[in-house]
Amino acid sequence: MDKLRIGIYGATGSVGLEAIESLVNHPWFEIAHLYASERSAGKTYKNACSLDTSSLPENISEMIVEPMNMDKIPEDIDVAFFALSEDIAKEYELKYAHKFAKRLPVITTSSALRMQEKVPLIITEVNADEHLKLAEDYRKEFNSKGAPFPQCNCTTVPFAFALKPLLETVGVEVAFMSSYQSISGSGAKALKKWEEERLNEKGLPKPFQYKSIVKDPEVVYEGNVRPIGVKDSKDEEGKVILETLKILGKYKEGSIIPASFTVDCMCNRVPTFRGHYEHIRVKPVKPCSTEDVIEIYKDFNKRCKALYGDLPSSPEEHLIILDRQPQTRFDVTLGDGMSIVLGEIEVKNGWIKLRALSDNLKKGAAKGSIQLIEYLYKIGFI
Amino acid sequence: MDKLRIGIYGATGSVGLEAIESLVNHPWFEIAHLYASERSAGKTYKNACSLDTSSLPENISEMIVEPMNMDKIPEDIDVAFFALSEDIAKEYELKYAHKFAKRLPVITTSSALRMQEKVPLIITEVNADEHLKLAEDYRKEFNSKGAPFPQCNCTTVPFAFALKPLLETVGVEVAFMSSYQSISGSGAKALKKWEEERLNEKGLPKPFQYKSIVKDPEVVYEGNVRPIGVKDSKDEEGKVILETLKILGKYKEGSIIPASFTVDCMCNRVPTFRGHYEHIRVKPVKPCSTEDVIEIYKDFNKRCKALYGDLPSSPEEHLIILDRQPQTRFDVTLGDGMSIVLGEIEVKNGWIKLRALSDNLKKGAAKGSIQLIEYLYKIGFI
Repeated sequence: MDKLRIGIYGATGSVGLEAIESLVNHPWFEIAHLYASERSAGKTYKNACSLDTSSLPENISEMIVEPMNMDKIPEDIDVAFFALSEDIAKEYELKYAHKFAKRLPVITTSSALRMQEKVPLIITEVNADEHLKLAEDYRKEFNSKGAPFPQCNCTTVPFAFALKPLLETVGVEVAFMSSYQSISGSGAKALKKWEEERLNEKGLPKPFQYKSIVKDPEVVYEGNVRPIGVKDSKDEEGKVILETLKILGKYKEGSIIPASFTVDCMCNRVPTFRGHYEHIRVKPVKPCSTEDVIEIYKDFNKRCKALYGDLPSSPEEHLIILDRQPQTRFDVTLGDGMSIVLGEIEVKNGWIKLRALSDNLKKGAAKGSIQLIEYLYKIGFI
Repeated sequence: MDKLRIGIYGATGSVGLEAIESLVNHPWFEIAHLYASERSAGKTYKNACSLDTSSLPENISEMIVEPMNMDKIPEDIDVAFFALSEDIAKEYELKYAHKFAKRLPVITTSSALRMQEKVPLIITEVNADEHLKLAEDYRKEFNSKGAPFPQCNCTTVPFAFALKPLLETVGVEVAFMSSYQSISGSGAKALKKWEEERLNEKGLPKPFQYKSIVKDPEVVYEGNVRPIGVKDSKDEEGKVILETLKILGKYKEGSIIPASFTVDCMCNRVPTFRGHYEHIRVKPVKPCSTEDVIEIYKDFNKRCKALYGDLPSSPEEHLIILDRQPQTRFDVTLGDGMSIVLGEIEVKNGWIKLRALSDNLKKGAAKGSIQLIEYLYKIGFI
């Protein structure tokens, strides 16, 4: 069987590296081309990439990076993976993603396309079936062999995943979420900044001892609970809300009708390296018990295993239900970062409450998208 | 005017030191005695206390620590401040607090007495008026000149404070809270443990790379979102819920009828040094707008200033309303740790949402209790 050939655009950034790592020794796919800016072009990948590439096998780390000329779609790739850094992603995706998608499936990891009407927004186990109908329409409308497949926000992943099994059983009237997001969710520059702060810190990160309000606090990650944006979290929260409702929506006549329950979230960054931790509260439509909810999640996990368990990037357990509280540092790598970890599930005062943890750099990023390509390939969509 | 004389029990622990710091150069109070275990007795305070006492003036750091013989109530103190460490607090408070309280006002900072029926539970600005009725009953019943005054859990403080102004205006039907609690809330030993973890950490605190579930994770603070208890947060959450309803309850015929709205919280520890940060959601009984809620808090702050603004430990603003999100490291010391800092207040989907930050080592601990003694002194209760 010939392997599916994947071209990675923006290969030298952190998302590019994660995509590459997810494709090392892949049984179904191979990396056809690594594209990056002119500055990197012509160099070996390990020389062009400023991140830690030591885990890559030689046949990949020695690949020559090619210049990213997106006006020309390569003939010899089956899937394009746009792993563009946030500063150029919006411009490039709006300009090129649909052009590519009219020829072949395009994965994008940034936000530009997510809320477009004709574009599916898929977390494989949560809504691949429903949203693929949009992708089929796309193919018909544009007489295309492709379709665009944006990856949703990494904060949306555990929330939408935890809501889906409830939505289709006990129903959801209201869903609230509070996030404890890791600094890697803010990218490689933020991690670098955090590392510098830690090097300059003497002892424990005590308060700064301000006696009057600082109008515009500088960005400080260490020892701080801070907003996702510069002064608040509204942009992130708005994205998570809209994406969640779209992901859990139903296909109808060429578009997705968003789910119609009340949803809101409050997002914060905390000094953890990796893993987005969430407090989730759901008011179900039908009354249920703690045992019911645990059973619902166990059933959903069984269904995930039956439908998606054979995908190379799928974990052994799609949902892990702990009998203790999840902890970021101990549990984020379970299932090689592809499991959603739930804990302290309880029904109280008529509300379901639980904690969810997901790896923002794997399930919530490139590897989550690779898993989707695997599914598309398995069902013959690619 | 003679100063009120305060005896501090458990003076060499972290709460003891905070009580002492709150009393340095106090215009109304003076430290009469410092009591601690046999091990410390006879030493100067600075030699007996293993914490950083360098900020204390010489007349205090050179005070001789006396042995803690609680079977005898000293004649020459007006108030007893029990700052006992958690490991002995329960036993000692249950054994001695009421005995002392039948002679003089007793402050306690641990949890043993908080939920006792005849014991008031006061956050000065929130409920001093209502709960003092219990203290008056106590005096009558025991023909006492005292009464016990436990300090509530530090996590309860910003939550109950944020709820009070809403409860008495728009009403509260449901209140939810998610906490981002600092490590100092877990005491001096936890801070020491965290410091050691940081010294052993090379670079950023990456995940531990477990591939299967760890049944009983060891305690790790660095780079982790972890429970307040060993494996979950239920004990802490239970305390916060009961205390909040008691604090916001109404006096009726010798006891406090707890407030009757639905309240729940989810508590977690994050790697911050000092300051408990909370996401609060309230479903009000009466519809209201964001502007209404901001106005309600501004009014409440004005009332606090009128009633409690002249207490030496009161901040200039009891409630600080930011036009940005609070941040632990920048905002926790506002009002010398005695202000409750609110931000990103919004009414959405019929729910009030906001973020609250409070200093768990000042307003949420010894200095909060000193402020209460000041109030009792001012109104002539002491």
